[in-house]
Amino acid sequence: MAINYSYIKFNKVKTNNIKQGYKNRGMLLENDINISNDYYRVKDIAYIYKKPTPIKLVKVDYTKNKVEEGYFLTPSTTDYNGIYKGKYIDFEAKETNSKTSFSLSNIHDHQIKHLINVKNHGAISFVIVRFNLLDKTFYLSTEKLEEFIKNEKRKSIPLSFFEEYGKIISVKYEPRLDYLSVINQMYFGGK
Amino acid sequence: MAINYSYIKFNKVKTNNIKQGYKNRGMLLENDINISNDYYRVKDIAYIYKKPTPIKLVKVDYTKNKVEEGYFLTPSTTDYNGIYKGKYIDFEAKETNSKTSFSLSNIHDHQIKHLINVKNHGAISFVIVRFNLLDKTFYLSTEKLEEFIKNEKRKSIPLSFFEEYGKIISVKYEPRLDYLSVINQMYFGGK
Repeated sequence: MAINYSYIKFNKVKTNNIKQGYKNRGMLLENDINISNDYYRVKDIAYIYKKPTPIKLVKVDYTKNKVEEGYFLTPSTTDYNGIYKGKYIDFEAKETNSKTSFSLSNIHDHQIKHLINVKNHGAISFVIVRFNLLDKTFYLSTEKLEEFIKNEKRKSIPLSFFEEYGKIISVKYEPRLDYLSVINQMYFGGK
Repeated sequence: MAINYSYIKFNKVKTNNIKQGYKNRGMLLENDINISNDYYRVKDIAYIYKKPTPIKLVKVDYTKNKVEEGYFLTPSTTDYNGIYKGKYIDFEAKETNSKTSFSLSNIHDHQIKHLINVKNHGAISFVIVRFNLLDKTFYLSTEKLEEFIKNEKRKSIPLSFFEEYGKIISVKYEPRLDYLSVINQMYFGGK
């Protein structure tokens, strides 16, 4: 049942994606990751999910299963986590419309702290950053992110830093955004 | 900053808990787990979080950061996950008012499937079940849960199964519900 459902969801999102074409690719990073995660699950490769957005509930009608008043909260962790090849995976994904740098203001301080904490406890943790206007999506490890923050006064990570220390994640048919192939290179000897 | 905040949250919840006393202990399983997770984080022992409840957003006023109409969705995974000693941790927690058994209808099929999937990929996955009226809280591994489902026609797990194959999790001052001590016994040679 679960697998069938995943297939349905996977195909539905994929079709929507194709309909929208490549024009709005920049807006679709979250969607690209979600359908890639669906693909990894259907293929029994990895179990990685996006966490729901936390909402403070103020008024709820439980008889209707309905939220009548709620407020978005700042997430205390990253958006994505799960398991791959026995390892705990944790990451945040962000887009930028800058052509030259990625502002660290896009990631909350406690999210960066979280990435560092879980990395220190043995997680594979990282960020995925898409430069929309350059049509480039990068993997950057938490180690490199931490190094940048420690050594640099700048509040933006220049594109050149991603080019030097990150890895390009290619966009393809399926999985749409194969970020686990980069994890394979970095952590599992390319296998 | 993040650590201070955790301390504040931790103490606040703990105080509320003490105020409520032991009377409603059964209603407090989620709270017990949350403050235990806060404790583990403050002490840099483990990073385990409750996932927010997924809500389908129907009407949102983004200028006010406000949800005006939303509906609770069935979660596709378990409530809790994170990392401990380099291992991916994943579990579901449930209470029952039965004195004799725990009905499997309390856990969605896809949540059980999820627990089995992540276990097969190397996770430490389990359920925490509290028998409110007996004042007993059990750890039960996904392996044992899976065995029960495969071998038994019954749709309820009898208390005796928990007593034989589960582990009691003691409730104490702090951490309130020290389920990681059971994980230590089961997976890390008691350390």
